Amino acid sequence: MSSKVLMIILDGIADRPIDNKTPLLVAKTPNLDSLAMRGINGIMDPISPGIRAGSDVGHLALLGYDPYKYYTGRGPIEAAGTGINIKEGDIAFRANFATVEEKDGSFFEKKVIDRRAGRFSQTDELVEAVMDELSLDTEFILKRGSGHRAALILRGEDLSDKISDVDPKKEGKPPKKAIPLVSEEAAINTARLVNKFSEGSHDILRKHSLNKALYEKGRLPANALLLRGPGKVPRIESFKEKYGLSLGVVTGTSLIKGIGKMLGGIVIDVEGATGSPDTNIEGKIKAALDAIKRFDVVILHIKAFDELAHDGDFQGKVRFIEKVDKALTPILSLNNCCIVVTADHSTPISVRNHSGDPVPVTLVDENVRRDRIDSFDEFSAPSGGLCRIRGLDLMPIIMDLIGVAEKYGA
Amino acid sequence: MSSKVLMIILDGIADRPIDNKTPLLVAKTPNLDSLAMRGINGIMDPISPGIRAGSDVGHLALLGYDPYKYYTGRGPIEAAGTGINIKEGDIAFRANFATVEEKDGSFFEKKVIDRRAGRFSQTDELVEAVMDELSLDTEFILKRGSGHRAALILRGEDLSDKISDVDPKKEGKPPKKAIPLVSEEAAINTARLVNKFSEGSHDILRKHSLNKALYEKGRLPANALLLRGPGKVPRIESFKEKYGLSLGVVTGTSLIKGIGKMLGGIVIDVEGATGSPDTNIEGKIKAALDAIKRFDVVILHIKAFDELAHDGDFQGKVRFIEKVDKALTPILSLNNCCIVVTADHSTPISVRNHSGDPVPVTLVDENVRRDRIDSFDEFSAPSGGLCRIRGLDLMPIIMDLIGVAEKYGA
Repeated sequence: MSSKVLMIILDGIADRPIDNKTPLLVAKTPNLDSLAMRGINGIMDPISPGIRAGSDVGHLALLGYDPYKYYTGRGPIEAAGTGINIKEGDIAFRANFATVEEKDGSFFEKKVIDRRAGRFSQTDELVEAVMDELSLDTEFILKRGSGHRAALILRGEDLSDKISDVDPKKEGKPPKKAIPLVSEEAAINTARLVNKFSEGSHDILRKHSLNKALYEKGRLPANALLLRGPGKVPRIESFKEKYGLSLGVVTGTSLIKGIGKMLGGIVIDVEGATGSPDTNIEGKIKAALDAIKRFDVVILHIKAFDELAHDGDFQGKVRFIEKVDKALTPILSLNNCCIVVTADHSTPISVRNHSGDPVPVTLVDENVRRDRIDSFDEFSAPSGGLCRIRGLDLMPIIMDLIGVAEKYGA
Repeated sequence: MSSKVLMIILDGIADRPIDNKTPLLVAKTPNLDSLAMRGINGIMDPISPGIRAGSDVGHLALLGYDPYKYYTGRGPIEAAGTGINIKEGDIAFRANFATVEEKDGSFFEKKVIDRRAGRFSQTDELVEAVMDELSLDTEFILKRGSGHRAALILRGEDLSDKISDVDPKKEGKPPKKAIPLVSEEAAINTARLVNKFSEGSHDILRKHSLNKALYEKGRLPANALLLRGPGKVPRIESFKEKYGLSLGVVTGTSLIKGIGKMLGGIVIDVEGATGSPDTNIEGKIKAALDAIKRFDVVILHIKAFDELAHDGDFQGKVRFIEKVDKALTPILSLNNCCIVVTADHSTPISVRNHSGDPVPVTLVDENVRRDRIDSFDEFSAPSGGLCRIRGLDLMPIIMDLIGVAEKYGA
């Protein structure tokens, strides 16, 4: 019986047909087809039929966490991704270092010049200054993310995530004062704290020597932090607590790193893993094969199918599928390992965005009831032995296959 | 339109493949295949994908009772099986007549010599003595089951099933004092009552003339009752209340008899029905065909597939499948009856225990949309017209087929 699990998540790989063709149908994929042939196949609704899943909720469901219970917005995931040790009840925000007008007056009257502060990324000192100098009436943690990104959590009593974003989401407008979205004391209090944080951090940042130096060089200063996506951190069991299995995550994207960290998994960094078509795909697959020696369950997340579909690039998606398929060769000789190949959602070229169509799913394991499917694609999968399952069904099926599921009843 | 339903539950008949074969694939099953050909087919997750169902929760689900709501442990099912008229709120226990050391002192310091009292089965007088002579601070009913088995219910205010077992589950150890598993008054009170019952019944049993006679003959006295598996009886509608249909149950196993009685069904006893491969299978099928004249819905439960799989006996399972298939011949000429053939869970030979794999399901009725499936097995079923359903879906589908389902909405 397999003792390990490799879950390969091909982000947005599935399509709707254009002239009866999809990139998966057109691409030559001998390795994916060989896995389909060796396994049991089906289609899977990441959430439920017709629901357009984001990558975050799709991954949560595939890992057995009901997003309707555990997903409270991007804030907690991004905060976990930066390495903040988030706790139940924290209010977490995504933050951007940004540039607002250099003038006196209220923060909320200064227009945003660049939401990404010229993609300035040397933000460590700035974060440190805010943490050192700002005082709020509640505990807070600010931590940098990749590039111009950061995350903030507010911790304490009487806090709510039912408040509006400060980030105006476009340039040329001033930041928006956070307002409570419900008439509750906690929301009123949190909106006040967020506005105080926004003004206070701006005061500290605009005076910071680093920003003064940037300004003098004619570059955009990172003189503001724009908050968005507040979410209350839910009570969430770690993957290890829930399944008794350790989790390793190989991914090039910060969102999936955040999911992995939120569930107590270990994120394995791979040089050149970018989440784009130029990603170091061989490096990621090698990292996943190494990780499978150390972890019980390894997620190998490959992103660029989704990006190419967002760009409407049919041929690019075909080429990337073939590139990944070729790189998967060493996976085929894995032993004593349950291999799952699927996606977190469909991203049809024709939609240029996620759709609610189901995704193909292949389970390769000595224990499965093999079917006659010999191709990994949207049209073969529905005739497979799994028929149609949901994202939340996947982990129970895997747990049962590898012999670690408990019996319910006598 | 059919007015009757015969549900044939082949306990644990489905497998995982060994060298691409399962007992169902290997066995010659012209009758089962003929039913598959005449019906609509699919796979069914007794609970949900990957969940390893016990026979008790599997049967509850197949009869339309959500086990997550109605299953509180084995106690209530076994108590109903003995014929105790269980009521909502009762705390029900499984009990064994057992032999503990013959010496003075505390019951909880006497080692268990035989958990089954030498399988002594003439327990009527002993039960009567305990019922007559023991007084607790709450109402109780003790009733004998088959062989050395019995069941106990405690009835009254302030009772809880959140207490530990007295039965040490092995010989050579003394019985364990029941302890409350939560810090609630009801659990503390129930643990006290259980300990008082255990000590008090032991005092009565060890002095009983029957046990003295056994002792003098050098046989093991049935001088103790070991309680285990407490469960609070849930509010549960009878099958008749829920569906307006009468229920008859043909089974050789006490667990399924208990389920039938708990739902207010009538259990039809068949001479020689044992739940083992030597069971009187023709007798059971004849009893089911008789029962279908008197009841609206008849469950015909056949157990030994499961037993043989627990033993890892591939060929034995093949032979038993062929034996049952042959005996099913008279079923094929049933008229005006919806016939369902399925299982309560898979029991793969390779696992020697229940697995979470789905089971095949065949519905034969003049009203079904027949498909092209011509074999009753794990590999054909997923291509059938039912695709993949859940145990709780079965009764609504049947109710609809036989024309007794109410419309939802206008």
